[in-house]
Amino acid sequence: MAKRNVKAASASRAGKGRASATAGDDTNITALALPPVALSADMAAYFAKCEEKLGFVPNVLKAYTFDMAKLSTFVAMYNDLMLAPSGLSKLEREMIAVTVSSHNRCYYCLVAHGAAIRQLSGDPPLGELMAMNYRAARLSKRERAMLDFAVKLTAEPWRVEEEDRERLRKSGFSGRDIWDIAAVAGFFNMSNRVASATDMRPNSVYHRQSR
Amino acid sequence: MAKRNVKAASASRAGKGRASATAGDDTNITALALPPVALSADMAAYFAKCEEKLGFVPNVLKAYTFDMAKLSTFVAMYNDLMLAPSGLSKLEREMIAVTVSSHNRCYYCLVAHGAAIRQLSGDPPLGELMAMNYRAARLSKRERAMLDFAVKLTAEPWRVEEEDRERLRKSGFSGRDIWDIAAVAGFFNMSNRVASATDMRPNSVYHRQSR
Amino acid sequence: MAKRNVKAASASRAGKGRASATAGDDTNITALALPPVALSADMAAYFAKCEEKLGFVPNVLKAYTFDMAKLSTFVAMYNDLMLAPSGLSKLEREMIAVTVSSHNRCYYCLVAHGAAIRQLSGDPPLGELMAMNYRAARLSKRERAMLDFAVKLTAEPWRVEEEDRERLRKSGFSGRDIWDIAAVAGFFNMSNRVASATDMRPNSVYHRQSR
Amino acid sequence: MAKRNVKAASASRAGKGRASATAGDDTNITALALPPVALSADMAAYFAKCEEKLGFVPNVLKAYTFDMAKLSTFVAMYNDLMLAPSGLSKLEREMIAVTVSSHNRCYYCLVAHGAAIRQLSGDPPLGELMAMNYRAARLSKRERAMLDFAVKLTAEPWRVEEEDRERLRKSGFSGRDIWDIAAVAGFFNMSNRVASATDMRPNSVYHRQSR
Amino acid sequence: MAKRNVKAASASRAGKGRASATAGDDTNITALALPPVALSADMAAYFAKCEEKLGFVPNVLKAYTFDMAKLSTFVAMYNDLMLAPSGLSKLEREMIAVTVSSHNRCYYCLVAHGAAIRQLSGDPPLGELMAMNYRAARLSKRERAMLDFAVKLTAEPWRVEEEDRERLRKSGFSGRDIWDIAAVAGFFNMSNRVASATDMRPNSVYHRQSR
Amino acid sequence: MAKRNVKAASASRAGKGRASATAGDDTNITALALPPVALSADMAAYFAKCEEKLGFVPNVLKAYTFDMAKLSTFVAMYNDLMLAPSGLSKLEREMIAVTVSSHNRCYYCLVAHGAAIRQLSGDPPLGELMAMNYRAARLSKRERAMLDFAVKLTAEPWRVEEEDRERLRKSGFSGRDIWDIAAVAGFFNMSNRVASATDMRPNSVYHRQSR
Repeated sequence: MAKRNVKAASASRAGKGRASATAGDDTNITALALPPVALSADMAAYFAKCEEKLGFVPNVLKAYTFDMAKLSTFVAMYNDLMLAPSGLSKLEREMIAVTVSSHNRCYYCLVAHGAAIRQLSGDPPLGELMAMNYRAARLSKRERAMLDFAVKLTAEPWRVEEEDRERLRKSGFSGRDIWDIAAVAGFFNMSNRVASATDMRPNSVYHRQSR
Repeated sequence: MAKRNVKAASASRAGKGRASATAGDDTNITALALPPVALSADMAAYFAKCEEKLGFVPNVLKAYTFDMAKLSTFVAMYNDLMLAPSGLSKLEREMIAVTVSSHNRCYYCLVAHGAAIRQLSGDPPLGELMAMNYRAARLSKRERAMLDFAVKLTAEPWRVEEEDRERLRKSGFSGRDIWDIAAVAGFFNMSNRVASATDMRPNSVYHRQSR
Repeated sequence: MAKRNVKAASASRAGKGRASATAGDDTNITALALPPVALSADMAAYFAKCEEKLGFVPNVLKAYTFDMAKLSTFVAMYNDLMLAPSGLSKLEREMIAVTVSSHNRCYYCLVAHGAAIRQLSGDPPLGELMAMNYRAARLSKRERAMLDFAVKLTAEPWRVEEEDRERLRKSGFSGRDIWDIAAVAGFFNMSNRVASATDMRPNSVYHRQSR
Repeated sequence: MAKRNVKAASASRAGKGRASATAGDDTNITALALPPVALSADMAAYFAKCEEKLGFVPNVLKAYTFDMAKLSTFVAMYNDLMLAPSGLSKLEREMIAVTVSSHNRCYYCLVAHGAAIRQLSGDPPLGELMAMNYRAARLSKRERAMLDFAVKLTAEPWRVEEEDRERLRKSGFSGRDIWDIAAVAGFFNMSNRVASATDMRPNSVYHRQSR
Repeated sequence: MAKRNVKAASASRAGKGRASATAGDDTNITALALPPVALSADMAAYFAKCEEKLGFVPNVLKAYTFDMAKLSTFVAMYNDLMLAPSGLSKLEREMIAVTVSSHNRCYYCLVAHGAAIRQLSGDPPLGELMAMNYRAARLSKRERAMLDFAVKLTAEPWRVEEEDRERLRKSGFSGRDIWDIAAVAGFFNMSNRVASATDMRPNSVYHRQSR
Repeated sequence: MAKRNVKAASASRAGKGRASATAGDDTNITALALPPVALSADMAAYFAKCEEKLGFVPNVLKAYTFDMAKLSTFVAMYNDLMLAPSGLSKLEREMIAVTVSSHNRCYYCLVAHGAAIRQLSGDPPLGELMAMNYRAARLSKRERAMLDFAVKLTAEPWRVEEEDRERLRKSGFSGRDIWDIAAVAGFFNMSNRVASATDMRPNSVYHRQSR
């Protein structure tokens, strides 16, 4: 901690020469190297929209291009969960995404959704904190109750019971909100595992976004 | 173990009078009691098909009837994963489903998918064994490798690496098969959590199927 | 979950041809293959009684026939714990047995004592639920307190303290009842480990009992 | 570590005045305070023998005096396991006892059986090491294999499989020896839990034995 | 993942209005609010050097200003471990620091030392990866062996044995290097806990460094 | 438990012939065998003082003699933490040391600091109990709160929050006392790991001290 940087100027050459820790992330998107099929018309339009709005197609979408049915069901579920109207704000849904992904230590999701939190919140360190330890962040009681539920559901789903739901209700969440918290936490427990199982790599551009 | 049943005839009255452990499972499907909306035409047709082929609509589908978009994306993803062509047989996919659900101790999924294994395998104890401890079952090397991967991915996704994929390849699985194992394991890590978060209850008819 | 069974008729051949997951359970009772000695007069009488009342001799008893002293001390302790007068009903003792065995994922004990719960309770799904996740069952407060204690004692015996005993007393258990809960939970923590260490296999008849 | 004792002479008064950490251990043997019944003739003779040979009756025996059937089945099983002929020496059985009790952090068993190891081995630190971390002791390969099996069986019985038994066989253990390792490890997994559940206290004399 | 950013422009206002997750980090450095004493001459000089070279005094140093003896022993140990000559490069020592802090999910150390890795390596994503899951980074065999040892030592120190040291030796580390790996990993296991126990907050400037 | 010692006289030869579990502890202090350098004047004086007051130089100090800077920073930090004025008594600091070392199962620290507790407390079994399971000791509420905090900080530092500090304050600890509890617990989380990583062996004389 203390004096690390005092002598950093002279030391900073130490890392030069080593390959980047993220070498190949933009080209070798998974360890499975599944050959893509032609995009369906719907998916081609969707990819074009990503390029237009984001400037790139997220690697997770490219990872699914080996099978149009799988790509389109993934996109449909993702967009419904994260973007459709809900009692949870988009930022709250991203906070669940990153907190779950932090428990599961998922490289892809932490990078991509950490960037989303930085952008949606206008508070870049919030993205870092969700990835590190959400308990250290200055959160509202509502946010904390939501994330405590998501983390228990991730770590020990077999122990979630009525008293856990009751705690959410006392923090102002409706039954429908509880469903949405569970569904988003569940979705990232799925995506984290698909990403880890395939060594999915995030677009390198995420690292620099909204810093 | 030993003499338990020797005196069971006289003892068997002991349980009489207690309420069933599954009371209400067919009527109170989740603890959230979300009011259903009208089924879309597609979903109405799908429910009718379930009634015709199965004799009932699985409770998980009823649980989603509060929102047609969520119901139809769930059905689309489920059917693609579990029923579409794959290098994994339908039984193998159900074995992954139950082994993951056993790790997560998910009541809904163990009951519904345990019944599926009994039916698909024609070997009822296989359904029990997957729910208890897959390591005790007499499995082929291929099945064992597949389930070991699914369980590691469930328990410690952050530790899955190339050597785990390599083990699957050596057991004869292709890159696409690895994706499918991951996707099914991931899907039940999602569904287990939605079920546990909402106290989802399986149709009581599953308990008696294919015994 | 959803449409699994819709197409099951055509799919159900998939499992045909694979060996049963329980192949050999009635003949290769443990992986140690210890040669039996002649039964003592007492034990011969006891085995005859099992045949008469149950229709078979439980495999755990056969597993101990390599040594009459070990067989008879096991039988004596088992019968005292599970069948002698106690403030706990026989069903309650079996519920502890299965809940502990579920935590330890013990194939032998889950099969044999799951059957006992189905029989004693007249509520077959109760046997399944105890094996899957006792927290999902509709239990009385007394049953739940008893099983929570048994599971904590199984998982983290070093953390059991006066406040845990106090919780049992508040649920109506006497000091002697607490001993009996501990003794039954302790016994299955022993038996689960002997069974797992030796790959003990349950009589196949248990799978079909009291369904 | 370093200079702790340098100033200990002046500091050593610090602890004076606090009650002993083991206050009441010889009189309040369990937290349940179950009233004893009259000893049976057999058990009275056995207690007399303990007094004669050991100079005292171990508290665990006193703890069971509320019920003669339970006392005598416990004594029968204990003596068979720990004292009857076996391919495992008495010291090896005590090493299993303490290693298991160390995993379970059981005060009663660590104190009573730690004393036994000090006495049987003539190597007092061996008793301490088994209670602290058996991996740090200088053990033979045979002892280490035996204790590794006992600890895995204690910590994760559901993961014990043929390759674990094979490792024991390669270290020279017979099938019967494997049974005995499992049975002793199992027994202390039972006794540790009965002791922890009841806050069983060891005779204070053990602390001073064979130092 | 997929379409998150497509609609982000309109959604990005959602986070506005909430307090920053790091509010007060530069002023309320710990939850203990211990009043500082006057800096000793040595420490005043050291703080001045920090200001000159880094532009600020790291908060961990300010946290220790309640006691000059504690501050100076901390600084002495830190500087020896992280900056003195060693077979480990400064970057390697920082990689150990962050990997250990990631296991322990320590907010202070992840922020401060993550910044150091970004700076020393000239590879900003490396700092993120060490904080998320070092297993996902493209590392040399030497780096991976070093971090595997540090993480095992952090998670289960009781299981570190000769074969773990041997693995390091085979990766080219000397006995002295092994000491240094252990000492740095040990130091951050200490610092992580002091930081977590006191809710220590990193200087906000770290968040923006070397991005 | 029961009859173990009844036949111990005849059995006690069993251990004869085996090498001591602590063979070499006084000569092979670590597995790294780092060659010592000449002691600095300060350290030579300090070692002489150890010899005079304790009768020996603790092995941990000898382990550090390969580097005078590391030895002297270790000694300075150790002596400040364990011997300087504090709201915690020296015995309380040793109780934290041993309770943390028990969680981490550190042979060196349990032996050396267990001896310190025996000496400082005048209650030898207290040293054993701290090494076995502090929850079984008869402690004051203050001691228990202090050790509960130290153990949580050791096991799950990421979960320590304001309510944990508040519990300490309610038990009478000041902010400065909380720092000292954290610093001592942190220090032994460091030392335990350095000792485990290097297989550090305690002076054999500790085993016999203050019994």
